Amino acid sequence: MENIIQKHDQELMKRENIKLVLSIIKSKGPVSRAEISRIVGMSPTSVGRIVEELINTGLIKEQGQVGNGVGRKATLLKIDSESVIGIGVEVDKDCIIAGAISFSGKILKKIEISRGVSIYTPENVSLEIGKLVKKLIKDLKINKDKVIGIGVAFPGLVNVEKGEIELSAQLRWEKVKIREILQKELGDLPVIVDNEMKVKTFAESLYGMAKSSHRVALMSIGSGVGSALLISNKIYRGSSNTAGEIGHITIDPNGRLCDCGRYGCLQTYIADWALIEEANKFRQIKNMDEIIQAYHNNETWACSIISRAVNYIGTAIGILVCLYNPDTVILSGRLLGNYPEIAKKIEDMNYNYVWEPLRESFKLEFSQMGEDSAIIGAGTLALVTGLDEFIL
Amino acid sequence: MENIIQKHDQELMKRENIKLVLSIIKSKGPVSRAEISRIVGMSPTSVGRIVEELINTGLIKEQGQVGNGVGRKATLLKIDSESVIGIGVEVDKDCIIAGAISFSGKILKKIEISRGVSIYTPENVSLEIGKLVKKLIKDLKINKDKVIGIGVAFPGLVNVEKGEIELSAQLRWEKVKIREILQKELGDLPVIVDNEMKVKTFAESLYGMAKSSHRVALMSIGSGVGSALLISNKIYRGSSNTAGEIGHITIDPNGRLCDCGRYGCLQTYIADWALIEEANKFRQIKNMDEIIQAYHNNETWACSIISRAVNYIGTAIGILVCLYNPDTVILSGRLLGNYPEIAKKIEDMNYNYVWEPLRESFKLEFSQMGEDSAIIGAGTLALVTGLDEFIL
Repeated sequence: MENIIQKHDQELMKRENIKLVLSIIKSKGPVSRAEISRIVGMSPTSVGRIVEELINTGLIKEQGQVGNGVGRKATLLKIDSESVIGIGVEVDKDCIIAGAISFSGKILKKIEISRGVSIYTPENVSLEIGKLVKKLIKDLKINKDKVIGIGVAFPGLVNVEKGEIELSAQLRWEKVKIREILQKELGDLPVIVDNEMKVKTFAESLYGMAKSSHRVALMSIGSGVGSALLISNKIYRGSSNTAGEIGHITIDPNGRLCDCGRYGCLQTYIADWALIEEANKFRQIKNMDEIIQAYHNNETWACSIISRAVNYIGTAIGILVCLYNPDTVILSGRLLGNYPEIAKKIEDMNYNYVWEPLRESFKLEFSQMGEDSAIIGAGTLALVTGLDEFIL
Repeated sequence: MENIIQKHDQELMKRENIKLVLSIIKSKGPVSRAEISRIVGMSPTSVGRIVEELINTGLIKEQGQVGNGVGRKATLLKIDSESVIGIGVEVDKDCIIAGAISFSGKILKKIEISRGVSIYTPENVSLEIGKLVKKLIKDLKINKDKVIGIGVAFPGLVNVEKGEIELSAQLRWEKVKIREILQKELGDLPVIVDNEMKVKTFAESLYGMAKSSHRVALMSIGSGVGSALLISNKIYRGSSNTAGEIGHITIDPNGRLCDCGRYGCLQTYIADWALIEEANKFRQIKNMDEIIQAYHNNETWACSIISRAVNYIGTAIGILVCLYNPDTVILSGRLLGNYPEIAKKIEDMNYNYVWEPLRESFKLEFSQMGEDSAIIGAGTLALVTGLDEFIL
């Protein structure tokens, strides 16, 4: 028993050490072997062996030399960020977007198709994703072997282990074994599926505002409303990967009937379609742009709609702060990204929506990643998940 | 560097192994050395050595023998649950309760004093706690050395590391270095302070309903309203130990003015004082008993008050489920413990207050630990915190 544990521990430790060295090269590179050895507290021999293995995989490469005046010059190492690629796909209510994501989180190429009039069946979606992936690989003129995996982000309740969509109101799917269907289209490319809010959060934690914070609450507002909690850069998923489903908390028991059948869910006050529906009670309005335009023209109905939405966004922030006690709250999504007026109004409220003793416990940020965070997160998730097998 | 890490790891591992063996004996005892060895996958020699050390501390003792028909009979081991004691103290709006807690979470003796008319200064409270602790030790006729530590639970925002009350609305304290003041009264007995909801949660995770669940949301309703999240039996504290402060989330922006200065906080609808205040708008009411009596008599005003409170408790459960995605929700506190009518009404609502896709994601439980969970939690926290030094 002890031997088995030891053996298992050794392999795990080897894998962890490789990942550790890789992450140092990724974050601090160009960096010398000696410096890595100093940072991670590993012997120069061990570091040398691991670096050798990593160079063989193509993930890192040598670049130039540096000297300190005396003795031998040290060779610097940096990652070859385009050595491997993850493809991230976002399936939204209106469109499908796919992007090739480099090892350093950069989008190498992005393509999308609008939903148009086609019916959104799991088979259709998988077919379209298959086409997008093939087109990306062709356009980039890369070898398929460089693609470590495909990550697909869906709105709704996603069972990551089973690769199933349990429920997606936006897509009108229920209990769909989507990974299986996708796998048929994508052949031997490994597929991973997850909830869109979770992958956005993952991207923020690696490349965005959440990078250097320990406890982060994110809220995304667009066609859906979701939130997530990051604890030391790990996503808190809850018992069935649905932690953070803030769109369906009751915010006003006497409020609007939600599509879930209950009164006054948060999303009925702040999702963009809800604002458009509300505006149409007053006059015919096609999109958010028209509402914002009317708001700029000081039209009462538009001011009322924006003002109420902002108040409820504030209330939601107050709830996130009380329940998650984060050091940072990050707001993202179409509504805030496209209409800085709304972000400004939230800032003007000066944290009044939060219980006073906690007002200084967090800082409020607006995501700078924009709409790409879902494909960056999904692609990186596929990369990270696939890397284990790639390394060893 | 590697050597330092290894040395540190060895000590850590020794300590962890001792704790592991101790926890096996605590949960499975009476148990033989051979069985422990099998369960934890450690060599009989290692287990023998650790057991020896534990017997020397007095934490465990031998008891009887068991045979399987062939060979030598095995001696059984069990913990000596009264070998060490933690004293748990709960400071509430109305009273101070202190209890001697055994190593197995039993209350050996409990005493309390009512607040009465005395002013609740930190010095007065510390003085009273000092008296209670001395009386407990005297009444139990035990040696002071058996007491490993004192844990004190306060309502409000508590900084555990600094031993400070940052804010307690109930006690009207702000920035009080309470551990320092307590330490003067308690001499060389180590003192630890924490938030009451956190220690209640700790008790539930060890001895209550949360024992065998992985992600548990607790909500306590009484003179205050608080919640907590347990992830794999560890309390999620957030960035400043205030995660779960659900009492001050805005539940109705057009609602009652709360003592925090904002409108419609949850506690203004479900805390017991809030219900009594509300009742007094109708006629003179002194306590919850009178409201419940009137509710049984089907008096309209009492039915309205209880009905609205129950609806808001449901709304709060819905929020906890959406944000924490727990497998179990545990409700506790005076309001539910003393008035099963209210618990029944919540059960009758049949989970309608939760977003439908998540209704089967959790089970709802009512705490069986009752009002003692705070002193059990605080005492056990002191025990567990002190045990590290006690063992090695």
